[in-house]
Amino acid sequence: MDDSSAELPVCLAGVQAAARRISQHAHITPVLTCGTLSRLSGLSLHFKAEIFQRGGAFKFRGACNSIFALSEEEAAKGVVTHSSGNHGAAVALAAQLRGIPASVVVPANTPQIKRAAIRSYGVEPIVCEATIDAREAACAQVQAASGAAFVPPYNHRDVIAGQGTIALEFLQQVPGLEAIIVPVSGGGMISGIAVAAKALKPGIKIIAAEPTGRNGAADVAACKAAGELVQLPKPTTICDGLEARLGSLTWRCVQELVDDVITISEEEVVAAMQLVMERMKVVVEPSGAAGVAAALSPQLLRRHPELTHVGVVLCGGNIDIEGRVPGFWSKWLLE
Amino acid sequence: MDDSSAELPVCLAGVQAAARRISQHAHITPVLTCGTLSRLSGLSLHFKAEIFQRGGAFKFRGACNSIFALSEEEAAKGVVTHSSGNHGAAVALAAQLRGIPASVVVPANTPQIKRAAIRSYGVEPIVCEATIDAREAACAQVQAASGAAFVPPYNHRDVIAGQGTIALEFLQQVPGLEAIIVPVSGGGMISGIAVAAKALKPGIKIIAAEPTGRNGAADVAACKAAGELVQLPKPTTICDGLEARLGSLTWRCVQELVDDVITISEEEVVAAMQLVMERMKVVVEPSGAAGVAAALSPQLLRRHPELTHVGVVLCGGNIDIEGRVPGFWSKWLLE
Repeated sequence: MDDSSAELPVCLAGVQAAARRISQHAHITPVLTCGTLSRLSGLSLHFKAEIFQRGGAFKFRGACNSIFALSEEEAAKGVVTHSSGNHGAAVALAAQLRGIPASVVVPANTPQIKRAAIRSYGVEPIVCEATIDAREAACAQVQAASGAAFVPPYNHRDVIAGQGTIALEFLQQVPGLEAIIVPVSGGGMISGIAVAAKALKPGIKIIAAEPTGRNGAADVAACKAAGELVQLPKPTTICDGLEARLGSLTWRCVQELVDDVITISEEEVVAAMQLVMERMKVVVEPSGAAGVAAALSPQLLRRHPELTHVGVVLCGGNIDIEGRVPGFWSKWLLE
Repeated sequence: MDDSSAELPVCLAGVQAAARRISQHAHITPVLTCGTLSRLSGLSLHFKAEIFQRGGAFKFRGACNSIFALSEEEAAKGVVTHSSGNHGAAVALAAQLRGIPASVVVPANTPQIKRAAIRSYGVEPIVCEATIDAREAACAQVQAASGAAFVPPYNHRDVIAGQGTIALEFLQQVPGLEAIIVPVSGGGMISGIAVAAKALKPGIKIIAAEPTGRNGAADVAACKAAGELVQLPKPTTICDGLEARLGSLTWRCVQELVDDVITISEEEVVAAMQLVMERMKVVVEPSGAAGVAAALSPQLLRRHPELTHVGVVLCGGNIDIEGRVPGFWSKWLLE
């Protein structure tokens, strides 16, 4: 079977249905601009501030769409997921809003700040060993006991459709966008955005921002170059939200709709974080700065010299400053 | 002469004129909300995000109004000011926009990041000894040589009127505000806001947020208690934007129009910074977090139990993270 001719898992109507479904719960996030960053990039940059989304990241859109798409009967049995990051908090929050039970399995290396976020939405995390097998086994156990529905982090049509609502808003807010740069991990966000944006504006370019990490493992770039879903070792990157791998459904979207992949180093990600915090005055987590790093990369204009108005998704702002630099806050009190 | 009956230096019409004068240059800053901070305070909080103002702080409003109020003849000779902080950058930027020369005197202890901000608006700072006498002497020298107009940081009607434009926007954006909390230093911002807000909505409360600093020097609270402009030693506080003292004009406004002063500790300021950055996802400098600290202080509801909708000015976001915690950014690169 030729993958490229396979039907895409989501269409524009699905994204529009997601937008209606989540409209009572999700924020329409603002678009920011910054003269300094535009000058540095040589472009006119427009930043979609998903850092202001509920839960502090875009993940709420997909989780909310998935959970509100459940039938009453399914929903009554609750939901379960595993996550070391923003998806777990997003599922907990969306379940709280629907008034159904949620279970969130977290690996033992999950930072306290992420566990606290899950707890703040009324869910006590279930801790398991830090392997994918242990995470899946813990979820299966919950499902066997309760019949809870599993909410996957990215490789599911309802999740992809939810994340795609970013593009509907972005193109309404900035109709002149010629390209959208999207950080990529499991590919849920870029798949949804690509489906919706290209349906509304066929000429728009969708560009993935992918950290190479310390082990140089850029799997999206490798898959695109190979023309197939290649398996690479897990990346090691400060972009802790970008350590997943493309799934079967998201790869289909990426293969067909993503125009280019800009790879970025760890140093470029940190420089982008610093610029965003010092010049735009907003907080981004490393994964959230990956798109900014790509916008500032010379690769972008070399390969797409025709671009002027470029959108960048600031996809998450859940930074753990104290975890990275212990004593950071108390240092402000000393002379 | 009875100070309290003396005419105020600025009236609503003056603030409205300032709003027209700066409208081509200054941003109308957004109002943010945050469920967590509202819950913690027991209030419905509305944050006026002057961190997104040009130059990263409210200071641009007053500097812009002052510089664009000059006659062509005055303006042609340029402007001069002294500042260790946001006012210097604001004057440099406003002068650049009017196309006139600016001189900015900075004390020798001014951090490199603040000097870089002034340079980014085309002005090379003039460095002097870190005393008020040396700063004033350096300005006088520039004035004697060029006839440049001095742009004072707060104790001037055009500056006060410019800062007051915050209140015009804030009450249009959130008409239901019952109080506005304003960090106070020299008093230019709170004076302008008090004049405009009370003219538009006489029942509104204007509340000063004042750090006690490490030496417990809260001069606005002391002046209000004494009913006169008392001279106190310079405060020592991490709120480096709040180390000035009330002037003759701003004291008149504070004495007549400011309803209360909430004093806050250094620890409360740092806790507020952390909450704003972690939960609201925006960057504030310590001075910019002072109003948030006051909103979270139990003093507020104890003394004003009737309040529900409270505005807080996030007045500046020019944080020098690397200066306070050397190596901060490189720490993101290490495992």
